Amino acid sequence: MTHSVDQHGASASSVRLPLRPELADEKPYGAPQLDVPVLLNVNENPYPPGEDVVATIAEDVARAARGMNRYPDRDATVLRQDLADYLTLETGVGLNHCDVWAANGSNEVMLHVLQAFGGPGRTALSFAPTYSMYPEYARDTHTAWVVGRREADFTLDPEYAARQIREVRPSVILLASPNNPTGTALPAATVEAVCEAALEVDLDGARPVVVVDEAYAEFRRPGTPSAVALLERYPNLAVTRTMSKAFAAAGARLGYLVASNDFVDALRIVRLPYHLSAITQAAAGAALRHRESLMAQVATLRAERDATVAWLRKQHLPDGRPFEVAESDANFVLFGRFDDRHAVWQGLLDRGVLIRETGPEGWLRVSIGTSAEMAAFRAALTDVLQRPQDQADAQQQADAQQQGQEEARA
Amino acid sequence: MTHSVDQHGASASSVRLPLRPELADEKPYGAPQLDVPVLLNVNENPYPPGEDVVATIAEDVARAARGMNRYPDRDATVLRQDLADYLTLETGVGLNHCDVWAANGSNEVMLHVLQAFGGPGRTALSFAPTYSMYPEYARDTHTAWVVGRREADFTLDPEYAARQIREVRPSVILLASPNNPTGTALPAATVEAVCEAALEVDLDGARPVVVVDEAYAEFRRPGTPSAVALLERYPNLAVTRTMSKAFAAAGARLGYLVASNDFVDALRIVRLPYHLSAITQAAAGAALRHRESLMAQVATLRAERDATVAWLRKQHLPDGRPFEVAESDANFVLFGRFDDRHAVWQGLLDRGVLIRETGPEGWLRVSIGTSAEMAAFRAALTDVLQRPQDQADAQQQADAQQQGQEEARA
Repeated sequence: MTHSVDQHGASASSVRLPLRPELADEKPYGAPQLDVPVLLNVNENPYPPGEDVVATIAEDVARAARGMNRYPDRDATVLRQDLADYLTLETGVGLNHCDVWAANGSNEVMLHVLQAFGGPGRTALSFAPTYSMYPEYARDTHTAWVVGRREADFTLDPEYAARQIREVRPSVILLASPNNPTGTALPAATVEAVCEAALEVDLDGARPVVVVDEAYAEFRRPGTPSAVALLERYPNLAVTRTMSKAFAAAGARLGYLVASNDFVDALRIVRLPYHLSAITQAAAGAALRHRESLMAQVATLRAERDATVAWLRKQHLPDGRPFEVAESDANFVLFGRFDDRHAVWQGLLDRGVLIRETGPEGWLRVSIGTSAEMAAFRAALTDVLQRPQDQADAQQQADAQQQGQEEARA
Repeated sequence: MTHSVDQHGASASSVRLPLRPELADEKPYGAPQLDVPVLLNVNENPYPPGEDVVATIAEDVARAARGMNRYPDRDATVLRQDLADYLTLETGVGLNHCDVWAANGSNEVMLHVLQAFGGPGRTALSFAPTYSMYPEYARDTHTAWVVGRREADFTLDPEYAARQIREVRPSVILLASPNNPTGTALPAATVEAVCEAALEVDLDGARPVVVVDEAYAEFRRPGTPSAVALLERYPNLAVTRTMSKAFAAAGARLGYLVASNDFVDALRIVRLPYHLSAITQAAAGAALRHRESLMAQVATLRAERDATVAWLRKQHLPDGRPFEVAESDANFVLFGRFDDRHAVWQGLLDRGVLIRETGPEGWLRVSIGTSAEMAAFRAALTDVLQRPQDQADAQQQADAQQQGQEEARA
């Protein structure tokens, strides 16, 4: 569509839209979507759903489509019960649909949390390095954003966190565990300390809410706890999960949250009516019925993750320093530190392997793919790290050749 | 999940969550979802998709599900082009994907509009009676909400609207056409007058945006224009549409907007990344491919709507006054005026027909269903309107009988 000259005599395209000033220089969020053979950049599950999963989804979606002229169940009660049943199995904590909220990705779940409990005049607090969407949720809801720090090894000091909470007096505290992009899981004691500190903050009689983002929880190592076990003790605590990672369903956009009934009811007020389509409810329910085969893939990815950490720990930078590799309870590994991480990222991309240039300066994050993809990653990284020397050698040879030719002409 | 006594010695359930004060007394939005034989309450399309449509959706969703482990196309480019192609056919205005935005229902489209162009310190303006979700979008984005009035016949006086715009200086003007719950379409001249008035308001160099909500546009009568034809002249104009109504896809949640590239790019900044699932993109694209058969149903519903208006205009209230029936370019009709509309609504519900108690006091709204459903509605309404007299008769008989028995005992 092209714009003609309007009746005011000015070119219509000279009309400026009232975009909020704080958005004026913003770009749409998101990693580059590049067409590369080995995609290890956005923590996707590398295994496409099997044909049995696809068939169940197609059947259930067809059934939902037959009634598609009607609005969906606004409360998604059946799906929320399916999610409660799954979490009960996964964590051992008895849950039902009233304890669960679901939305289009945990993005939308977090938006609901900040719409209900954040907003103008309120503050959200987290601890960096952490998930880069958190400040966007705050911005989108006009919530002030304060970020404390994690330790050098990406853990969170419980006493420091408690001090920050008392000082900042946030209405929402966001903790990612396992944390993105570092992979770090929080011990139960740290989450407890944060919840206790929150209960001591008086916000006109209310207490801050604590949201533990467990998007990657299914990938945690044996012995690593889920904060779901703490829900019974802390009615201001919520735990978010997603089907994007463990359930290999990033394309289906289904995030969920488990918390007290009061917490869930608050989110129901700010959700847009019919936010979750009948098709999404059907597709997510179908994938949940295949949890056993999908969880077998999670075990494979955990083993691949541990092998990747072990391999990276044996690698050295060109100057001989060993790699630093963060502990990971997730389906990705943060490693470094490179003097020029962009060059390493670009070198991998040139070799057909896309990882993510994220986290603190000098670090890179690789998602865990299939065995073949991780072999390709290892080969490409080995090659990239040898290249600076190769390039130097090549340049020396070229220089020498050039010099020889010039000498011959002289 | 039940809450135990926490370490502070207080019952955990006594902890108050920091719900925003303005939400404290709110209830989740939505019409009652009741299990009733004849559902004519939420302007759904009564025709379930045919098996050909269901089969295409199942096939396309299965294809999308095979790649479901990956995130969806964040920009939904293929679907947006399909929507542009459809609108080009429907309106005759040449459009491409850059002119189109899509989200989970026009609810989410409107949220994006108010996130980008509304927000704290800004005002949205509309003219009542109109769609009851508009103030919710404003509330959810902390946008001040000002509502002017429509005329007694639910039209909008262009000069009055222009005065309101100059006075209120909104950053967003919302016009529903055809309007919900009245069915009233705006003439092109009224939309033009609103756009012209908006161009005269200076908001720090920017101009208010005008959003014409055409959720029901496909049901408009011959000769009623679409505001899409005005987009070329007004870069601050946007038109929203939905697949919920004409495409019989309320359960699929697909709303869209057409506007200038600048307008669409502003929405891309505030959207949550991957807001539109691969499954939704596939299902919506599949339904669009069946537009010819779905549009045939729209023609049937238009004829049924006209017949319903004509029938209602012949009806009388118990006191002999004729019904008032609003002109309708939508798939519903607003009629009245009843001294006790709730009693009429309840009487219909008791007879298995659910309509909506909405609009100005005394009016009721009925959605257009199948021929059989509309026959059931007419029979039930006729019965309800006769009932007060019947009841009175029955009461008189009962009283007489009682009196006779008492006399016999005396």
